[in-house]
This record gives sequence, structure tokens and C-alpha cells, in this order.
Amino acid sequence: MTSEGAKTIEQRSATSDAHADVTFFSSWFCPYAQRAWIALEEKGVAYKYVEINPYEIGADGDTKRALSLEQKRERYPEFVRCSPRGLVPALNHGKPVWESLVAAEYIDEAFDGPPLMPSHPHERALVRIWMAHCNDRVIPHYYKALMAETEEGRQAARDNFINGLYELGSFMHSLSPSGGCFLGGDRFSLMDIALAPWWQRAAVVLRHYRGFKFPEDGPVWQRLHSWFDAVAGRPSYQRTVVSPEELIRNYAGYADNSATSDAAKKFRDS
Amino acid sequence: MTSEGAKTIEQRSATSDAHADVTFFSSWFCPYAQRAWIALEEKGVAYKYVEINPYEIGADGDTKRALSLEQKRERYPEFVRCSPRGLVPALNHGKPVWESLVAAEYIDEAFDGPPLMPSHPHERALVRIWMAHCNDRVIPHYYKALMAETEEGRQAARDNFINGLYELGSFMHSLSPSGGCFLGGDRFSLMDIALAPWWQRAAVVLRHYRGFKFPEDGPVWQRLHSWFDAVAGRPSYQRTVVSPEELIRNYAGYADNSATSDAAKKFRDS
Repeated sequence: MTSEGAKTIEQRSATSDAHADVTFFSSWFCPYAQRAWIALEEKGVAYKYVEINPYEIGADGDTKRALSLEQKRERYPEFVRCSPRGLVPALNHGKPVWESLVAAEYIDEAFDGPPLMPSHPHERALVRIWMAHCNDRVIPHYYKALMAETEEGRQAARDNFINGLYELGSFMHSLSPSGGCFLGGDRFSLMDIALAPWWQRAAVVLRHYRGFKFPEDGPVWQRLHSWFDAVAGRPSYQRTVVSPEELIRNYAGYADNSATSDAAKKFRDS
Repeated sequence: MTSEGAKTIEQRSATSDAHADVTFFSSWFCPYAQRAWIALEEKGVAYKYVEINPYEIGADGDTKRALSLEQKRERYPEFVRCSPRGLVPALNHGKPVWESLVAAEYIDEAFDGPPLMPSHPHERALVRIWMAHCNDRVIPHYYKALMAETEEGRQAARDNFINGLYELGSFMHSLSPSGGCFLGGDRFSLMDIALAPWWQRAAVVLRHYRGFKFPEDGPVWQRLHSWFDAVAGRPSYQRTVVSPEELIRNYAGYADNSATSDAAKKFRDS
């Protein structure tokens, strides 16, 4: 790896237990893990990075056969104690926390630093509504657009992905027509963190394998593109970024439908 | 309707706008809406109940054909302003809030009354982890157990439903082996609210249509059964309950696979 993320991993992997408030279990390529990772960087938490390789290792390197939970427990016992289903991200902050958005919100609540949630209950509710929207009505279609085996299936998934983003963008545009930098307005929040890893992957991976391009015309898409420009300029995001070349290589298994990850299984069967 | 819920609806529907802090858009039979409803009752919010019938009405009553969003907007304009996808529950508290768990958490944050979330960030993270678990790994299997057309499909869904509950129960048992009343321990929380409506429906509806019975043996199942006894004794829950007869009648369309609700479509296709 040669990306900014790789440099951060190198540096944070060398953090000694004595200097870390948190142990962060992650996999360099995982967009779910990246959510918690951005939150750690944004809040300035002192964390130790522990890379989890969820695949069997063969003679030539990774086999891309996903380890069973039992195999993960043997190879990474502390990780599985912090993540009972063996999924990244997970944190050990004296006590375990797992699930990507829960971990990101926990980091916000447990550490000082810039708040990642608005202070007013109604604004917090909007962040939570649109995080759920990303999970339910945007992200699944990213995976399906990559994994569907027919052109018809890919087209339907691409349309759904675009529609889900357009719904989100329309709402954001209605709240701040003059264009707040971030999805919730002027301040970077968990809503931005919830979506950013997949926006980058759509721009790089879906484009490479499926010729995908985001629409550009009209105020809603302009709002979304200027949003991602603002995210991409944020140091916390930059320090977690995987290079386009590495992303493309990493997603080959999704594009030829040989992937065995939990996300691949979930969205292939659904 | 003759249930406790019906009495509450009658009383709260008569609340005048002038005496209501919140307008609550609900459908009497909807377990998602019941989550927000329990939260309103638990916090003692002054709310006006507005019943939303999402079905077309024919000569003999409800047709069970779901209304389109456009038809809902015509029939219930204020509701669709508060719930852009036309789903219950939704709140109007000066500003709109929708999505069942988001609405329940909003009610907790925006109103006085007994807190529905623990005060420590780690305990809050656990509530959020297990709410996500209910949504992802318990509730879908309830619907599939009811809707699957083959005995094989029903059996698989029943097993998954039981496994999802057992995972949750095991964790709760490990946290409070002596048996806290509620899932998070001594205090009623959003975690209890997230699961209770489906536990009741499994006990009534799955039992009636599919001969389902919860396991009873062992400390984990005892923990879960004593949990539901504690929930069932709670006034806020009682005031939202649909009678077994009405639930059975309401779910007939799921059991014969003619249901057209959003939940039915979502879990049938997945």
C-alpha cells in the first residue's frame, strides 16, 4: 500500500499499548471500518491500529477465502472478544464496542474534540434518519451494482443507488440551498462519515468495473459533489484513504462475483 | 378494536391541537409505530394520535391494497410532510421526525420524563448495538417465518429468528446473570422498545399461523421470558397493546402471502 491510509496505519500500528487510549481493529480496505477510523482521527484519539486480515493465507498470499469465526478467534483472540461476530471495525476502550456507526457515535461521545453530532435533538434526529437511509437505501445498491451478473440487474442497482443519493441530496439542498459544506450543514458530522467511504468507492471502483459516473447536472448533484470535495479536503478523511489502484484491486472479487466477505454474502443473497 | 391500545387511541385522538406538544402519526397494528408510541407513553408526552390507514378503502372496508405515496399525500397531507416516504411512525413536533427508532430516541432526548437511554457512553453503545441486532438479525426472520411459502423456508426463518434472539439473550444474561428486569439491566430502555412489539407478535401471530413456540429451557430463555413479563407489566407498553384476536386477523395477509405493506414487500423480496 502506498496511500495516505497506509502511512497512517504504519504510524498507528507502532503506537504502544501504554500510549493508546483505544485499540482499533480494522482492515485497511473496509469502508465500514473507515467510518470508525475517520471518527478516531477527527477526534484526535490516541489509538493503536491492529490490522485484521479476514482471509485465509495461502502459498501465494491471501486466498480470499473468508475465515470462519472460529478461525478468527484462534488468530485474533482479542479482536473477537471485542467483536463477537468477528467483523471490523471494533474498539477496545477498556470495554468492547462494535458495529461501524455505533463505534463512530461512541467515539464522539467518549472523547473530547470536535463534536460529530449536532447539539439540538431535532438535528441529531436528522443525522440518524439519513444515516439509516445510507445503510438501507444507498449502500446495498453500490454492492449490487458491482455484483449483479446481468446488465439488467446492474442497471436496476445503479438506478437505485442514484435515486437513494438523490433523495438524500434533495433533502440536504432543501435545508441549506446556499450549500453548507457538509451534509448536515456547516459542521462535519456522523452523516458525512456514514456515506463518504462508499462515495469514494463508487467514484473509483464502480467507474472502473462498471463504467459508472455520478450525474453532475442540477443543484442537487452540485450539492453532493461540493459535499464530497469538502470531505476530501478534511485531514481526518485523508488519513484513512486507500489509493484508487488498491481499491480497484481489492474489489476484483466483487466484480467477478467470487468475493466471500460478509458484505458480499449479505448483498448477493438479498 | 377492544384492546388497551384502542382505548388509548380513542383518548389521544380526542386531544386537541392546543393541548398537544406532538402530533403522532401511527397505524394501530404497526409494530414499528408501536416503538415510538411506547416512548411517548413512557415519557408522559402530551400527544395527539392521528390514525393513518395505508390501504385503499373498498365497498366492504379496507382492500389491503397499499396506497401509493401520491395517494397518501392526497389523503394525509400533513402526515406525508412529516414522513417523506409515507411510513408510520412519524411525529410533528414543530419539525418532522420519522423512522421508528430515530423517533423513539428523539422523544427521549426532546422531552422530560424517565430517560430511555443509559447515561454512560458505553452502555448507550450497547443499546445501539442490540437495537441494530434486532433490526438486522431478528425482525426480518419473524416476517420470513410468516411469509415463506415452503415448510423448508419457514423452518430456516424460524431457526434464524430463534438464533438471533438467543444471541441477544446470551449477551444480556452475561451482563446480568442474576437477571435484570430489562434487556439493558434494571432500567427500561430503547433496547426493550426495539424488540417488544415483535416478541408479542411472535407469541401470538407466529403461534397461530405457524405453530411457533419460544423455547423455554435454560438460563438464556428464562432471561428472555422474564424480560417480556417485565415489559408486559409496564403501563407504557400496556397502553399500546393490540389484542391477540386483532393481531391474528391483521396478519392474515402475511400468512397467505397477499400482504402489500412496505414491510411485507421488503421481507418478501429479500
